[in-house]
Amino acid sequence: MKNDCRVLLRHLFESAVAAVSPAAALAGRLPAPPVGRTVVIGAGKAAASMARFVEDNWPGPLDGLVVTRYGHGVPTTRIAVIEAGHPLPDAAGAEAARAMLAMVGGLSSDDLVLALISGGGSALLSLPADGIGLADKRSVTAALLASGAAIGEINIVRKHLSSIKGGRLAAAAAPAAVVTLAISDVPGDDLAAIASGPTIADPTTFAEARAILAHYGIEPPPSVARHLAEGRNETIKPGDPRLAACRAEIVADGWMALDAAAAAAAAAGFSPLILGDGIEGEAREAARVLAGIAASIKRRDRPVKRPAVLISGGETSVTLRAPGRGGRNTEFLLGLALALDGMGGMHAIACDTDGIDGTEDNAGAVLAPDSLARARALGLDPRAMLAANASYDFFAALGDLVVTGPTRTNVNDFRAILVE
Amino acid sequence: MKNDCRVLLRHLFESAVAAVSPAAALAGRLPAPPVGRTVVIGAGKAAASMARFVEDNWPGPLDGLVVTRYGHGVPTTRIAVIEAGHPLPDAAGAEAARAMLAMVGGLSSDDLVLALISGGGSALLSLPADGIGLADKRSVTAALLASGAAIGEINIVRKHLSSIKGGRLAAAAAPAAVVTLAISDVPGDDLAAIASGPTIADPTTFAEARAILAHYGIEPPPSVARHLAEGRNETIKPGDPRLAACRAEIVADGWMALDAAAAAAAAAGFSPLILGDGIEGEAREAARVLAGIAASIKRRDRPVKRPAVLISGGETSVTLRAPGRGGRNTEFLLGLALALDGMGGMHAIACDTDGIDGTEDNAGAVLAPDSLARARALGLDPRAMLAANASYDFFAALGDLVVTGPTRTNVNDFRAILVE
Repeated sequence: MKNDCRVLLRHLFESAVAAVSPAAALAGRLPAPPVGRTVVIGAGKAAASMARFVEDNWPGPLDGLVVTRYGHGVPTTRIAVIEAGHPLPDAAGAEAARAMLAMVGGLSSDDLVLALISGGGSALLSLPADGIGLADKRSVTAALLASGAAIGEINIVRKHLSSIKGGRLAAAAAPAAVVTLAISDVPGDDLAAIASGPTIADPTTFAEARAILAHYGIEPPPSVARHLAEGRNETIKPGDPRLAACRAEIVADGWMALDAAAAAAAAAGFSPLILGDGIEGEAREAARVLAGIAASIKRRDRPVKRPAVLISGGETSVTLRAPGRGGRNTEFLLGLALALDGMGGMHAIACDTDGIDGTEDNAGAVLAPDSLARARALGLDPRAMLAANASYDFFAALGDLVVTGPTRTNVNDFRAILVE
Repeated sequence: MKNDCRVLLRHLFESAVAAVSPAAALAGRLPAPPVGRTVVIGAGKAAASMARFVEDNWPGPLDGLVVTRYGHGVPTTRIAVIEAGHPLPDAAGAEAARAMLAMVGGLSSDDLVLALISGGGSALLSLPADGIGLADKRSVTAALLASGAAIGEINIVRKHLSSIKGGRLAAAAAPAAVVTLAISDVPGDDLAAIASGPTIADPTTFAEARAILAHYGIEPPPSVARHLAEGRNETIKPGDPRLAACRAEIVADGWMALDAAAAAAAAAGFSPLILGDGIEGEAREAARVLAGIAASIKRRDRPVKRPAVLISGGETSVTLRAPGRGGRNTEFLLGLALALDGMGGMHAIACDTDGIDGTEDNAGAVLAPDSLARARALGLDPRAMLAANASYDFFAALGDLVVTGPTRTNVNDFRAILVE
């Protein structure tokens, strides 16, 4: 049964990812070609694979440029693909952003900009505001990523340190029409939040950005502090006339992935319960909460009857306490292992749907009822490894990492806890 | 609607508490009187009200002694009630424990000990092991309470510093029959965990107790360190012949309270979803997780259709960062307020079913969609107050504390998030 459960959990994850692949997402969703030029731009972990689908299915001429993460590129012929740094922005991303702004700069109202947006675009499409160096922007981003801040909070800061985010890219394309097709990695599918919304109006403010840094006790470099304090050149606000010819649509999101996994679980005879696409919180603490729900299922067959699978999406966060190796999904699973403490019949998987958990080479890992015991037999101290943020090493030692390589889509995390 | 929601949430909490009152729990559950003497003992926040019910309904002679928290006593005529300190043990609790051990000491196999056990008994029935002073035991308990340790972990340590916990009280009563009737405040209703199981065999060990202190970085006083290191006089293990004439039954638990609240919600036209009796984790992080589920309900009518109520029990924990005023339920609600960030249509209640949130005078509090805005209008900084563990002051300033006084029962926390 143990191996069966592991195989089933892998199958649920693969079903989830397949349901939100660019091909599944874009089929039938492309707009009609314009009278004038078609320029394809895009940013995110799915940008190259989305561009490839458009190339293969567009009924006319086009050219363009998209930026994706290192390793997430695919071969294209007409749309250039630049690979750049994530989650910390680098010079390649800045170069792509500059080229994209230039490319949409001289268009007319007969032209169409097709923007292919997906999660990760916020770091990838990174052009610091005037007066801020890339190193300073990277240091603020790194501090935020390590602080436990929610991704929405991180992106409010990013938008206010950028020359391209928060609707600025779409404003630069006016008067051309801009059609945004987005694969959402954001709970609630707020278009302005996906990839920090380069083509979407942004209601957030400099004051909010300053408050977030203050709350997490982050002292920004002087150039950033000065820019935020001056508060000039706000993001493009809803109702701005430069965005009048823009429309945007979400073509895939976390719910589609969760529903596909639930259908696969039901087909295998397990009762699925989806807790939603919006699970946030410190990874190890979120694990304690979900462990409590799973334990109720085991003890009482409630809120769902066994055998059951508890499915959730969203994005937990990790407050770094030590320079250990691990992403939020393996940290979640190690916290879950300790919370369940060897409780029988409990199996789990937690993976990033983009195939990369944080900055490691794995998508996530799987957990079995005997994981803690096997680890201790190997001489590992699970509590100490969690304290050291060394969850990658924990699951690597067990041979329980899930390694897929980049999936070239991204609807955020996928978690399933199977209760036999 | 706002006032209606507040009234409904209070009604759900009152329904939950009423379903697990000692009268509701003990009716029809008392054993047959013995040939010999009946001695009633007990410990916990419900001990006095349970003793009163037994006095009023017992068909023969009895005497006895129970210990409850200060303020949780009720008038009795035949069973003495001692009030003592909680969550930190004091001399009154030690006195009660000594008297109880003496009282069950000379009984025969014709006699019956009726043990009325409820949550809180672990601190109340506190008799340090030989060689450990009360001040040292208090300091370890205080350090554990402030560390973020789970209650189950805290109780493993307590049992190994005690002369009465972990089955020792029942062993002292042998050869008399011991019938334990328990109101459970423990997820999973592990009898050995309720009030640290003075009448129940205990499988945990000195080694576990030492590991828990080490994990939370707690340096115990020398007398405690020595006692744990020596590891003599283990708790009474399952199968011990001294417990052969013991039986135990749970007469009320968290699920009964949650089910009663769900029935009340359904009667009011709200779809209830119970997440179980076992929600654990740092209170503010558990709030982020539940906020994510509530947000899914609001956005997608999933996992339940609006209007809905998300109900849960269990016991979160609070890692003290500052000497602020507040219990885990108000801390949970303040974290929830920040996670929901004024999202419309969201109301919540979080209260301890014993009527006392931590060591304050309130059971908990209620939250409304405008709570953050009202607080800011009063000049409060919600984030700063959470950082200062000052959640009591936050809800006190809003006039949104729930104050019931001691309910004289205890099935742990009750949370309900109402999504309009």
